[in-house]
Amino acid sequence: MQLTKLQNQFVKIRTNKAFELFVIGVIIFSALLVGAKTYEMSPTLHYVTNLLDWFISAFFLTEITIRFLAEERKKDFFKSMWNLFDTVIVLVSLIPADDTDMAVIARLVRVFRVLRMVSIIPELRILLVSLVKALPQLGYVMLLMFIIFYIYAAVGSTLFENINPELWGDITISLLTLFRVMTFEDWTDVMYETMTVYSWSWIYYLTFIFLSAFAFLNMVIGIVVNVMEQEHAAALKEKMEDEGEPTLKDIQAQIAALQVQLSQLAEKPSQDTTYVKVNAE
Amino acid sequence: MQLTKLQNQFVKIRTNKAFELFVIGVIIFSALLVGAKTYEMSPTLHYVTNLLDWFISAFFLTEITIRFLAEERKKDFFKSMWNLFDTVIVLVSLIPADDTDMAVIARLVRVFRVLRMVSIIPELRILLVSLVKALPQLGYVMLLMFIIFYIYAAVGSTLFENINPELWGDITISLLTLFRVMTFEDWTDVMYETMTVYSWSWIYYLTFIFLSAFAFLNMVIGIVVNVMEQEHAAALKEKMEDEGEPTLKDIQAQIAALQVQLSQLAEKPSQDTTYVKVNAE
Amino acid sequence: MQLTKLQNQFVKIRTNKAFELFVIGVIIFSALLVGAKTYEMSPTLHYVTNLLDWFISAFFLTEITIRFLAEERKKDFFKSMWNLFDTVIVLVSLIPADDTDMAVIARLVRVFRVLRMVSIIPELRILLVSLVKALPQLGYVMLLMFIIFYIYAAVGSTLFENINPELWGDITISLLTLFRVMTFEDWTDVMYETMTVYSWSWIYYLTFIFLSAFAFLNMVIGIVVNVMEQEHAAALKEKMEDEGEPTLKDIQAQIAALQVQLSQLAEKPSQDTTYVKVNAE
Amino acid sequence: MQLTKLQNQFVKIRTNKAFELFVIGVIIFSALLVGAKTYEMSPTLHYVTNLLDWFISAFFLTEITIRFLAEERKKDFFKSMWNLFDTVIVLVSLIPADDTDMAVIARLVRVFRVLRMVSIIPELRILLVSLVKALPQLGYVMLLMFIIFYIYAAVGSTLFENINPELWGDITISLLTLFRVMTFEDWTDVMYETMTVYSWSWIYYLTFIFLSAFAFLNMVIGIVVNVMEQEHAAALKEKMEDEGEPTLKDIQAQIAALQVQLSQLAEKPSQDTTYVKVNAE
Repeated sequence: MQLTKLQNQFVKIRTNKAFELFVIGVIIFSALLVGAKTYEMSPTLHYVTNLLDWFISAFFLTEITIRFLAEERKKDFFKSMWNLFDTVIVLVSLIPADDTDMAVIARLVRVFRVLRMVSIIPELRILLVSLVKALPQLGYVMLLMFIIFYIYAAVGSTLFENINPELWGDITISLLTLFRVMTFEDWTDVMYETMTVYSWSWIYYLTFIFLSAFAFLNMVIGIVVNVMEQEHAAALKEKMEDEGEPTLKDIQAQIAALQVQLSQLAEKPSQDTTYVKVNAE
Repeated sequence: MQLTKLQNQFVKIRTNKAFELFVIGVIIFSALLVGAKTYEMSPTLHYVTNLLDWFISAFFLTEITIRFLAEERKKDFFKSMWNLFDTVIVLVSLIPADDTDMAVIARLVRVFRVLRMVSIIPELRILLVSLVKALPQLGYVMLLMFIIFYIYAAVGSTLFENINPELWGDITISLLTLFRVMTFEDWTDVMYETMTVYSWSWIYYLTFIFLSAFAFLNMVIGIVVNVMEQEHAAALKEKMEDEGEPTLKDIQAQIAALQVQLSQLAEKPSQDTTYVKVNAE
Repeated sequence: MQLTKLQNQFVKIRTNKAFELFVIGVIIFSALLVGAKTYEMSPTLHYVTNLLDWFISAFFLTEITIRFLAEERKKDFFKSMWNLFDTVIVLVSLIPADDTDMAVIARLVRVFRVLRMVSIIPELRILLVSLVKALPQLGYVMLLMFIIFYIYAAVGSTLFENINPELWGDITISLLTLFRVMTFEDWTDVMYETMTVYSWSWIYYLTFIFLSAFAFLNMVIGIVVNVMEQEHAAALKEKMEDEGEPTLKDIQAQIAALQVQLSQLAEKPSQDTTYVKVNAE
Repeated sequence: MQLTKLQNQFVKIRTNKAFELFVIGVIIFSALLVGAKTYEMSPTLHYVTNLLDWFISAFFLTEITIRFLAEERKKDFFKSMWNLFDTVIVLVSLIPADDTDMAVIARLVRVFRVLRMVSIIPELRILLVSLVKALPQLGYVMLLMFIIFYIYAAVGSTLFENINPELWGDITISLLTLFRVMTFEDWTDVMYETMTVYSWSWIYYLTFIFLSAFAFLNMVIGIVVNVMEQEHAAALKEKMEDEGEPTLKDIQAQIAALQVQLSQLAEKPSQDTTYVKVNAE
């Protein structure tokens, strides 16, 4: 009895608009704190920020606990990816970090508390989900792109290894160098260097740039077309439903009904005249 | 009486096409003057440009005054954002600037008089308004992008601060460095530097580039889809209205009318034949 | 008589497919010759290329003359921009160039003979015309972009002139520097330099990049939307005409005809029955 | 008899899903092997990779042989471009390579075995075919772009050859330099160098950037419009067929049928009444 009463109160708190805004406020404040910590500061200020940090951790723990207790069926709480995400972020930031190495990691974990912004604002959540959903349909283009990268990296690593091991030492470094070439970042320096040994190596770079740019372009177009089609389909559906606009199929059905009506009419008059005939006899 | 007569004359001047063209001419001339002042010039020429500058200021003041006096209800004048903008620009450029520091500011203010071009040409005004209107709908994508930037800046500032304080000193500098990485401007130099200490830091840069590029792409697609939908809707509406093209709904209503007509017809003949019956009796 | 016979023969030559292909061949050969001349070559080869050059000039002169004589009304010949373009290119390349300065100009003029490729291949001509036609509708966006550039250049030239006169000396140089910043080409070098004096000058660069990128994006979207709408309209029109697909208006007219037919029918039976009545009397 | 039995078994193997997955597995393994070889390794490991290499070669040879023997009509096997491609790749990688020069080539050939990934995964095959198909329709835009590049390269090579022969030595090098300018890679360095001699040469670079960017933009838009139209047409067709959505033409035919029905009805009643007339007599 006592428990359900408490649970009801937790539900009330969770759905309270003011409480939600306060949570967002605390998240923003924790983000600012993370930023502030990157500046040089006096020991006193350092102490204050550490204190504030623990207050925020405590608040987040309380908030998560309230949301957990407010859940009717405890199992469902962890079914939501976002709840899981929040819990992990909060729990990890509770780990005490005294020695220097751990201190850096502890600071990094606190940085990820900013991501709670995404989990608490529904619009950002929808945006992120739709971004992630857009990825798999690009799977094959990305696989093709990786194959292009891999082949060029293997060729580059085989041919240019002795020219500059820092750029073409092994396939991993070559992949990084090719990504650099793809972003046009000082790619001519890389090319001019290998052209001193293999004067025809510009073909390697130009074909790579064309192939990767072309594959990239296809990926972008793929996304654009997908997004636009979804938008278009959604807009069309909405328009149909909202304005009560009929489909061509509706029109067809209506005309068919008209035809039935007409054929019934075509049979009826003859019956009438038959009736007249009988009377005239 | 005298006043309204004067006001009518002001309205006449304001709506005069030649006056408007003359104002545009003066704005263009003031823009050229701003450009000319960036060149080295003899004291005489300097004196001449200063004189011309005051003439332009005086002319703009007169023009604004005429437009203000021509307004029937003085309150409405300042309701238009563009009038307010013009007035502020003109008034600020009237502030005398004798000492050197103020002279630079005075010159800068005069530069913004070029912006009056936007406020006086309606097409540019519409363009700017539509640009500004497009911004808020990108709000959440931009917020997401800022969160990505902020988290990466905090991580970068924590990890790389000791490697190069000029690039990763605090979160503001880190944000600037990340923007630089996003524009691919010597980003490999930044990466190679941190890779000497943290050899796995290329993951940091590559994930950042992919995430920010992906978010940016989504923003661009968002704008494109929005613009195209508006254009499409506008084109569709125009087409419908201009060519008198009926909607499917109109067609449906027409067929329904046909059905009513037909059912009335279906009832009528039997009445006629009843009439025949009566006659035959 | 003699003349019209000759003219007919010229018309025959002009419309001859083989002749056209031969002209294209000569243009391609002249392009290759232009390329070949950029390489070092022996005096003999140099003499040969010069000779070939004069042969090509002579051939082009002959070809233009044939096309001019084949024209029925000489005035119409120069009404075509392409004919005018060809004539100018050919005539200018006839000017003898002995002294060194003129030799360079003569070589440059010969380079532009490659452009005759565009004037002789209809598909390229159409492409170029459509490109040029797309420009004016971008007029206002480009004007807005120029205003943005101009204001930033004036501000930059005022503030940063003493930091680096080579980049910010006057408004022309500043415009070039800003274009460089817009292409992200070592823009951070430019920024870091001014940040040593004005530490807040990154705002200047970032706002400029955002504004110009945004305006540029709008220009691109403007072109895309325009092209797609034209394509869409063309595709729609073609579909309608080719497949005999009726418009909704046609359907409406057809139903209206049906309604008229139906109302005539509704009146007819009563006439018939009236006729019956008469007979029954 | 014996042979066809064997052939049937080969067909069974070829169409076996497990066999296909195993082949993909071997291809991936060979790709990893290619990557592993770019790293430094001990002689033992080197020996092992060489051994594995020969096993892979042997397996690929067996696999190709099975697929060849499974083919009913041997001629058809080589009609498929992909079979031909696979055979060439496999056969070439069988060439023994003992001396150092050949060893590099042999390693490069083995790299291209990664491309078998494309030939064995149908989705990648479709993707690549559609990419290749998209190229020819861009033919004229690419020709126009090449003409722009060629003219600018010829002009650049003529004017700037003496300033920096490494960048403007002949037309091939100039084309490469212009491609570099187009990718904005240190293009200002190239420009500032020539501006010391020809102070107006920035016009050369800016017009080139605008022209090539404009042509490039047109190419991209061309691809986008093409892809979207195809997608749109495919989506429209699918929608029509799947949902049984009628076309406007169907509707028109249906109404026409209604009209015929109606006109028959309009004639029928008068016949009936005629019949009545007869009876009444």
